[in-house]
Amino acid sequence: MKIQSASARLYRVPLAQPVSDAAHGIQTHFELIAVRVTDEDGVQGLGLTYTGGSGGLAIVSALEGGLLESLVGKDADLIELCWRDMWRAMHYVGQGGVVSFAISAIDVALWDIKGKRAQMPLWRLLGGHDGHVRCYAGGIDLNFSIEELLAQSEAFRENGFRAIKMKVGRPSLREDIERIEAMREELGEQFPLMVDANMAWSRMNALRAAKAFNPYGLTWLEEPVEPRDYASHASIAECGLVPIAAGENLRNFSEFKQLIDTGRIGYAEPDVTNCGGVTGFAKIARYAESHSAITTSHGLHDLSIHLLAAFPGTDFLEVHGYSLDAFLSRPLRIVDGYAEAPNTSGHGIELDWQKLERHAVQG
Amino acid sequence: MKIQSASARLYRVPLAQPVSDAAHGIQTHFELIAVRVTDEDGVQGLGLTYTGGSGGLAIVSALEGGLLESLVGKDADLIELCWRDMWRAMHYVGQGGVVSFAISAIDVALWDIKGKRAQMPLWRLLGGHDGHVRCYAGGIDLNFSIEELLAQSEAFRENGFRAIKMKVGRPSLREDIERIEAMREELGEQFPLMVDANMAWSRMNALRAAKAFNPYGLTWLEEPVEPRDYASHASIAECGLVPIAAGENLRNFSEFKQLIDTGRIGYAEPDVTNCGGVTGFAKIARYAESHSAITTSHGLHDLSIHLLAAFPGTDFLEVHGYSLDAFLSRPLRIVDGYAEAPNTSGHGIELDWQKLERHAVQG
Repeated sequence: MKIQSASARLYRVPLAQPVSDAAHGIQTHFELIAVRVTDEDGVQGLGLTYTGGSGGLAIVSALEGGLLESLVGKDADLIELCWRDMWRAMHYVGQGGVVSFAISAIDVALWDIKGKRAQMPLWRLLGGHDGHVRCYAGGIDLNFSIEELLAQSEAFRENGFRAIKMKVGRPSLREDIERIEAMREELGEQFPLMVDANMAWSRMNALRAAKAFNPYGLTWLEEPVEPRDYASHASIAECGLVPIAAGENLRNFSEFKQLIDTGRIGYAEPDVTNCGGVTGFAKIARYAESHSAITTSHGLHDLSIHLLAAFPGTDFLEVHGYSLDAFLSRPLRIVDGYAEAPNTSGHGIELDWQKLERHAVQG
Repeated sequence: MKIQSASARLYRVPLAQPVSDAAHGIQTHFELIAVRVTDEDGVQGLGLTYTGGSGGLAIVSALEGGLLESLVGKDADLIELCWRDMWRAMHYVGQGGVVSFAISAIDVALWDIKGKRAQMPLWRLLGGHDGHVRCYAGGIDLNFSIEELLAQSEAFRENGFRAIKMKVGRPSLREDIERIEAMREELGEQFPLMVDANMAWSRMNALRAAKAFNPYGLTWLEEPVEPRDYASHASIAECGLVPIAAGENLRNFSEFKQLIDTGRIGYAEPDVTNCGGVTGFAKIARYAESHSAITTSHGLHDLSIHLLAAFPGTDFLEVHGYSLDAFLSRPLRIVDGYAEAPNTSGHGIELDWQKLERHAVQG
C-alpha cells in the first residue's frame, strides 16, 4: 500500500515539575515531534521523537526539508527499503544526531501502520516474547533534597513501581553516597535500585564512585563517563563492582556495537525514538542478546514497552519523567512492578491532538 | 573580546557541470552555509560548512535554534570553552550529523577572528609546519566516459595538478579496471593516482577490488565500504594490497579514533567543516600522527589548506569539485602540484557576498 502523505509537528511540552540531572541542569519543558504518515487506504501511523529542550526545530527541518516528501508514493510495507533510502539520502549530514531522530520518528510511524494493517499490536508483530514487562521509575532528581528524594520514591511505590533509578553526580561523592544510603535504607536490601551519573565523571572519578557504591548492591550504574569513550566503560565494567548501563546518547548501530564489543557494558539502553526507530532498536537488541548484554530502554515508555515485550534478552522498561500521560486516553499502568504491553493494533498510542495543540511551536 | 553578534545564511550553489559518484548519483548543486561572528571590536570571523544538496535547512535551524544566540556575550578567545558549551548544550541531538556541521562552522569563524586579532594566518597561528602544500585534484567523474575522464585529467594537469583522484564503483569491476588502466597509461607509472569508491561495496567486493587494483600502484583506495564498519576497513587494509583512505563521513573524534585504532587506515580524511571545525580537525590530526596515519583533507580546500600547512604528518590537500572560486577574490593557485597557504590574517577567505546572494535560500 502506497504512502499518500506525511507531516510533522513540533510541540514544547511543560513538565509537571522541574527536573534535573548532571548533564542538563534544571529542565522545565521537553520538545515532542509527532510525525503522521497516511497510506492510500487512509491508515495512519504515528511516529514520535523528543528532545530535552533543544534541537527540535532542526529535526523538523530535516523532516520537512526532504525526508517526509521522499516517502510519498513508496510502499509503506517496505520499511527496510524506506529506511535504507532515507539513511542514504541523508548520509552526509546524517548517521547520528538530528537525522537519526527524524528517521526514527518516520520508522515508528511506518511500523504503526504495519501493525494496524496486520491488526496486531507492535510487540506481537515484531516477534512476541512476553507482554508482561518489568518496569522501573526513572527519577530525574539530582536537585532534590534527601527528603524530596524519599518522598518521590514513596510516590513511585504507591504508583506500583518495584524498581527505582535515581540521579548521581552531585558536586561531592560523599553527597551521592549519603543519598544512596538513605534510599537503600528506605527501600530495603532487595529492592532494585539504579543510579545514573549522566556522563558526569572522568574515568578516575567513575572508578572511585563504582568502588564507593559497591556495598549498596545497585542494579546498575548508568553513563558514568562520555558516551563514546568506550574504553573507559570497559575499565569500569571490568572491575566487577557494579554493572554498567549506557546508550541513551548513541544514535546508530555502529555506536552500540562499539559499546557492547569494546565497552563491555551490562545493559544497553537504546531509545527507539532516536536509535533508528523500531528497525534500529531491533537490530541493537538482537546484537546485544548475542553478546550477553541485556537490552533496557530509554524514554517514551508507551512506545518502548513494545520493543521490550517483543524480544528476549530484555529487562526493565524505563518509565521516563518526560510523560505523555496528560495527552493519552490509556496511559501505562504499573501493577506490582510490571506493565502489560497493549493489545491494540500498532503501538496503540493515541494522542489528544486538541489538548496538545496548545503547546505547538508555530513553524 | 566579547562576541557581539552571530548569524547564518544558506545558499544553494550551482556546479559548473554536473558531477557524480557511487553514493550520490548526479549532482547539480551544493549547499553552502556561511556563519558570520562579530566581536565587540567589529572583527568579523567567517565560518563555512556545506552539504551535497540536502540537510542545509536543518543545519541553519540548529544554528538559529540556539547555537548562535548562545555565543553572544562570550569571550571569542575562549574557543575551547565555547566549543565544549555548544557540544554539551546540543549533546542529546548532537555528537554527529547536522549539529557537528553547525558547531564546525561556528568554530571556524572563531578561529578566523583569533587569526585576525593576532594578525596571523590560521596555519601559522595553529602551529605552523609547512605552507607549501601538496595537492590533488578530486575528480567526481563516475558517469564520465573514458574519453571525458582523460580529458578532465589533461585539464587538471594544465591547471598545475600532479596528483589526481578518480571515482570507482561502476556496475562491474571490469569497467573500473579499464578506467584505471586508461588513466595509468595516460599519466605514467609514477603519477600519484587515487581512487574513491564512495562506500559502494561489501567487504568481499572491496577485497576483490583491492586485489584487482594492486598492479596499478594506487596512492590510496578511498571509502571501500560503509564508513562506520571499522572492522571491514581493517580487513582490506591489512591485506597490504593498497593503502586505505577514509573519514569524510565521520563527524566526531570518537569515530576517527575507531577508524584509526580498529580500521587500521593509512589516510584519515577529516573535513574541517563538519568534524568539529579547526578544533576537531587539530585533535584528529594529532591522534593520527601519533598512530602513524597520514592526515589528508576533504572539501573546502581554501580552508583546509591551513590545517594541512599547520601540522606535521599531513599530505595531499584535496582540491574539491565543490568550488568557491567564482565567489573568491583570491582562489587557490596550484603550481607544479603544490599550493601556498595564504599569508593573510585568519583564513583569508573573502566571499563576494553580492554575487553569492543570488543563490541565497530564503528562510
